[in-house]
Amino acid sequence: MQKKTDIGLIGLAVMGENLALNMESRGWNVSVYNRTVPGIEEGVVDRFVAGRAKGKNIQGYTEIADFVASIKAPRKIMMMVRAGSPVDQLMEQLFPHLSTGDILIDGGNSNFEDTERRVKLAESKGFRFVGAGVSGGEEGALNGAAIMPGGTKSAWEEVKPVLQSIAAKAKDGMPCCDWVGPGGSGHFVKMIHNGIEYGDMQLISESYWVLRNLLGLSNEELSKVFSKWNEGRLSSYLIEITANILKHKDKDGEYLIDKILDTAGQKGTGKWSVINAMELGMPLGLIASAVFERSLSSNKEVRVEASKLFHEDKEKSLYNKADMIEDVESALYASKLVSYAQGFAVLQKASDEFNWDLNLASIARMWREGCIIRSVFLNDIAAAFEAEDKPKHLLFAPYFKAEIEQMLFGWKHLVSHALKEEMPIPAFSSALNYFYSLTSSSLPANMIQAQRDYFGAHTFERVDQPRGEFFHENWTGHGGDTKSGTYNV
Amino acid sequence: MQKKTDIGLIGLAVMGENLALNMESRGWNVSVYNRTVPGIEEGVVDRFVAGRAKGKNIQGYTEIADFVASIKAPRKIMMMVRAGSPVDQLMEQLFPHLSTGDILIDGGNSNFEDTERRVKLAESKGFRFVGAGVSGGEEGALNGAAIMPGGTKSAWEEVKPVLQSIAAKAKDGMPCCDWVGPGGSGHFVKMIHNGIEYGDMQLISESYWVLRNLLGLSNEELSKVFSKWNEGRLSSYLIEITANILKHKDKDGEYLIDKILDTAGQKGTGKWSVINAMELGMPLGLIASAVFERSLSSNKEVRVEASKLFHEDKEKSLYNKADMIEDVESALYASKLVSYAQGFAVLQKASDEFNWDLNLASIARMWREGCIIRSVFLNDIAAAFEAEDKPKHLLFAPYFKAEIEQMLFGWKHLVSHALKEEMPIPAFSSALNYFYSLTSSSLPANMIQAQRDYFGAHTFERVDQPRGEFFHENWTGHGGDTKSGTYNV
Repeated sequence: MQKKTDIGLIGLAVMGENLALNMESRGWNVSVYNRTVPGIEEGVVDRFVAGRAKGKNIQGYTEIADFVASIKAPRKIMMMVRAGSPVDQLMEQLFPHLSTGDILIDGGNSNFEDTERRVKLAESKGFRFVGAGVSGGEEGALNGAAIMPGGTKSAWEEVKPVLQSIAAKAKDGMPCCDWVGPGGSGHFVKMIHNGIEYGDMQLISESYWVLRNLLGLSNEELSKVFSKWNEGRLSSYLIEITANILKHKDKDGEYLIDKILDTAGQKGTGKWSVINAMELGMPLGLIASAVFERSLSSNKEVRVEASKLFHEDKEKSLYNKADMIEDVESALYASKLVSYAQGFAVLQKASDEFNWDLNLASIARMWREGCIIRSVFLNDIAAAFEAEDKPKHLLFAPYFKAEIEQMLFGWKHLVSHALKEEMPIPAFSSALNYFYSLTSSSLPANMIQAQRDYFGAHTFERVDQPRGEFFHENWTGHGGDTKSGTYNV
Repeated sequence: MQKKTDIGLIGLAVMGENLALNMESRGWNVSVYNRTVPGIEEGVVDRFVAGRAKGKNIQGYTEIADFVASIKAPRKIMMMVRAGSPVDQLMEQLFPHLSTGDILIDGGNSNFEDTERRVKLAESKGFRFVGAGVSGGEEGALNGAAIMPGGTKSAWEEVKPVLQSIAAKAKDGMPCCDWVGPGGSGHFVKMIHNGIEYGDMQLISESYWVLRNLLGLSNEELSKVFSKWNEGRLSSYLIEITANILKHKDKDGEYLIDKILDTAGQKGTGKWSVINAMELGMPLGLIASAVFERSLSSNKEVRVEASKLFHEDKEKSLYNKADMIEDVESALYASKLVSYAQGFAVLQKASDEFNWDLNLASIARMWREGCIIRSVFLNDIAAAFEAEDKPKHLLFAPYFKAEIEQMLFGWKHLVSHALKEEMPIPAFSSALNYFYSLTSSSLPANMIQAQRDYFGAHTFERVDQPRGEFFHENWTGHGGDTKSGTYNV
């Protein structure tokens, strides 16, 4: 009989394969299982065991009972399958084979509400459940990912050695994996991470587009600009790969970036971030603009038709080349700050709403390495949230306040100029407008309240009366004094 | 025994009261019912019957059995209660008293998915169900509303005479009420209507704010500008009441608008529009910006703190006064066009997705009078959708194409200028960016696809290969060729 393994892993797509290899490389014995679907997923396990896993402490199984039986109790089983009903189906298949105290870890991009439900379901059967967001793509899964686990608290001591061993390590040696909180909090944090990733990618695209089209920079020049930015405060994985992408040549020697179709796909977590922020009543405009822009990009046929209908009549106003590069950097950095500030504000709100007691500094630290949005300035974010005088809003932290004030001039000039030049920069614009609104002690919402009271008797508060007192005006002289009880707008 | 009435109405908040009075004024006998909650909703029915309904053909009931029994079969019962579980509870209370073929009409702002479910539930019990969005606020309910009914098709012939009689009438005499489609389509259309209303109100607020702060116009001057706009292509209810609001004086003789606190409330339908557009993969950025801006406005304490932290350093560049008023009008009108185009595109997508077979021209016509977003240009929208050569996108219709081309110069200059002057104009900006993206045959989404393939092996399409063929590049030389199956971003 074979020695029992330390952990099981289900689902041998790229992420699952790489995580299994990563675990094994850290000294863990791993059981792997993949379903067999004739004609579709046939021989997946055999191919892996005879291929990339050859000669390693990895045991392959095609029967779920054998797979479960091969793992040391209390069992730790990591599921890397498609989010949604496949996870529920897999759990139903696993339950009959599990023993009390066994731990299921969902490493997919599950909806946090599904995870909330699954934690309760597993616990009701005497098992434990961890919803762990895993970021880092192929590379991270293989060499060190950012892992955000939440769920059954008592499972943490059991899974911590494995998960922290396969996590990326920050420069100070801390693993990019720590306990997030109860219920679906791990997947919620991963969801916001992915939303921020959508925002970062959109911001980089806009920077690329402005420099390419308004300054006419070549791919090589663009690559150099991003490389240079990667040495400064914008230093991050996405900026780094952008520089690499821009200089990457196709087989024929031409730049591959120019051959790639401009229709961006998406799979849900960006959209979920925005939807959940809306449900919490929190502004997450930058990420929303990134999600909408991907939708718009994917509708290529309509855009091509529109571009023919509307003739271009662009003004070419003057802008110094060095200035523009610097101002795009300012716009990118300041907008990124706004995006993170919005994202962390949503996390704080969710923490308050769901009693998760999230540690924002710890979350920022978990994202420093391994994941797609890793960057130097997550250190500054962690520091800001750990300050004695914790800021009410990330932009209020003295360091970021100084940064954004320094950026503002270039940022607004760039946005103003690009919009006059008919460049789409939805995320730069959204961030700038958010900053203006956030820092406006007065906004024209008095007009909206007046209108709502005018047509719907919704009442309003007054600047000359205490908060919490609501007034209705008989605007037309014939509306009556009945206040709204039903009509919602 | 009293003569049976033509229709029953449940829920005597302002909308319910006014709808009952409206029905009665059109010659219908009406039964009304309101629940009695000691200390909260006590004597509501008595007060109404002895008050505004005195001497009218309106019978009040405080027992639901008596109320149902008082209505002619097949019964038509309109529910005007708070959206959500109150509707379900009320339906459960009503079911035991109903007869086969009776019709429940939900006139509240229900979620269209709830309505889908309720149509099925009612039909499974032999009843009929109509989810009817009603817009028009107090005034509309009393004198003629826009009503958007959908659900059990066979109910339409029964409820049509009552609903069309209480609907507003367009100038050509058509009632602003027509059958929308099956299931929850009526409430979906109402939801998008409300989302558009959020957008319109935000756009008006931005116009007000720019003219007030950058031009320093007084309330009287502002009122005149809006009055003048109301005579042209912007002619609409919201512009009209804005002019009235701006000149409305408080008891002390000062302008009331300046006393109203700038914290906008919201009750859900704007948010729902955006969430459902996202679920359908459709960009609805302008309305999203309006929803987020209301959230931001309501966080007044944070804004006040922020305004103190960031010192203002505004440039006052030159802008001719008459030009700016004209350019704000262009920005307002063009942004409004974009907002309606986005909204109707979502309706078309929902129609395709849910097999509703929506008639967009008919929907535009239903909104011409009675409702909050009523305006002259809904006639032009209806005409565009009825053209022989139905446009793929509202902005492609020859009339609107010409309009937006005429607006573009002023629109972009105003947005560019206001952003340089640190004015928050999120909806103007969102609309302009959408227009630029929509009319760009190329967008920088190639960069996003390259990044997704780089870190997650998500593959991309190529400009030099047929659509539908997906390619993966080994960007780093050591990533492997496994394609993504699990990792979603």
